[in-house]
Amino acid sequence: MELAPAEDAEAYFAALSELSRQTRDLVDAVVLTDVPDSELVAVTAELAALTDRLRALQCASPRPFEFGPDGVPRHAGNAVTGSANPHALPLVIHTTPERTVRAELSFRPTHEGPPGSVHGGVSAMILDHLLGQAVAVAGFPGMTGTLTIRYRGRVPYGEPLVGTAEHTRSEGRKTWVDGRIALPDGTVLVEATGLFITPSAWIEQQRPV
Amino acid sequence: MELAPAEDAEAYFAALSELSRQTRDLVDAVVLTDVPDSELVAVTAELAALTDRLRALQCASPRPFEFGPDGVPRHAGNAVTGSANPHALPLVIHTTPERTVRAELSFRPTHEGPPGSVHGGVSAMILDHLLGQAVAVAGFPGMTGTLTIRYRGRVPYGEPLVGTAEHTRSEGRKTWVDGRIALPDGTVLVEATGLFITPSAWIEQQRPV
Repeated sequence: MELAPAEDAEAYFAALSELSRQTRDLVDAVVLTDVPDSELVAVTAELAALTDRLRALQCASPRPFEFGPDGVPRHAGNAVTGSANPHALPLVIHTTPERTVRAELSFRPTHEGPPGSVHGGVSAMILDHLLGQAVAVAGFPGMTGTLTIRYRGRVPYGEPLVGTAEHTRSEGRKTWVDGRIALPDGTVLVEATGLFITPSAWIEQQRPV
Repeated sequence: MELAPAEDAEAYFAALSELSRQTRDLVDAVVLTDVPDSELVAVTAELAALTDRLRALQCASPRPFEFGPDGVPRHAGNAVTGSANPHALPLVIHTTPERTVRAELSFRPTHEGPPGSVHGGVSAMILDHLLGQAVAVAGFPGMTGTLTIRYRGRVPYGEPLVGTAEHTRSEGRKTWVDGRIALPDGTVLVEATGLFITPSAWIEQQRPV
């Protein structure tokens, strides 16, 4: 039964992702709760006990970047995309046949900045990751050098939005990508341009011998 | 006893903030937990029950911007600064005598991007808010137009960092501010420039009659 360990690992991964999903749901409830303060105090005490139970055994760091059993790369501990990180939206990015990226976005009240709207910093956070992924799928690995965000309109939460990004050009070690958060009809709410730099060391490694 | 309702409101506010603090602690435990999957499943079920208890009575939106009993403005529901929003760091910003802003930053494993480092998008999110606050305290109210982030070095979590920002110049309705996230010794890890626009309507309102 050589597959057993991998199956166990995937079952554990699934349980961890479900715990994170439930924790996001709790966060959403905390942000909007209006129960009496005696109940707030009681729930807080129970959360402290559950926190201790989860701390009975701890890893040194969040779940690393890895390849799933389907060969698809994933970073479950990531602050923006991680299925096992409650801080993550999580952002689920799809690669198109044209090697661009696209994500269905669904922001929640916990992302509030201006009343009823997503915080500009949260939009910037999502775009940073989306642009980095666009560089990767286009085959130009690099580190973010400069990220420029232009705010054009209010970003609502609680309704479907779309994030897209694509490579625009490259010159030597520099690569540019554009991206945006838009309404389903294409109206752009926030747009971004990223300049990514490929470290010299990476180019040395890729040079043909 | 006219003060009673206000005191009750502050006690409720404190209980809500403590619930959010405890929820952040839970999130940190989730990100690093390594307990057996039977325990993950059991804790998830208990979290679902606590989530339902908090949902027994809900507000229509997160806690609004308001003035505390000390006259200090606060936005407890804010995604970046809100004491009553578990998504928030929370970022606590101080205004200096020179009308610039400063915040002690303490990132955690839940903010992970590259291994052992803060996600670039999280740094962008914090800088967006810090720059907006710098514009406000300098007396140039406006909406973020463009935010440019330059990444200079790895941002570690688990150690103290400092965020600062200040107004640099204004021309008509445009205002520029600079900010950065740095090590305590002043080494800049991420820097940002923001261009803020004062809406025409706001200027009309402020014009002397």
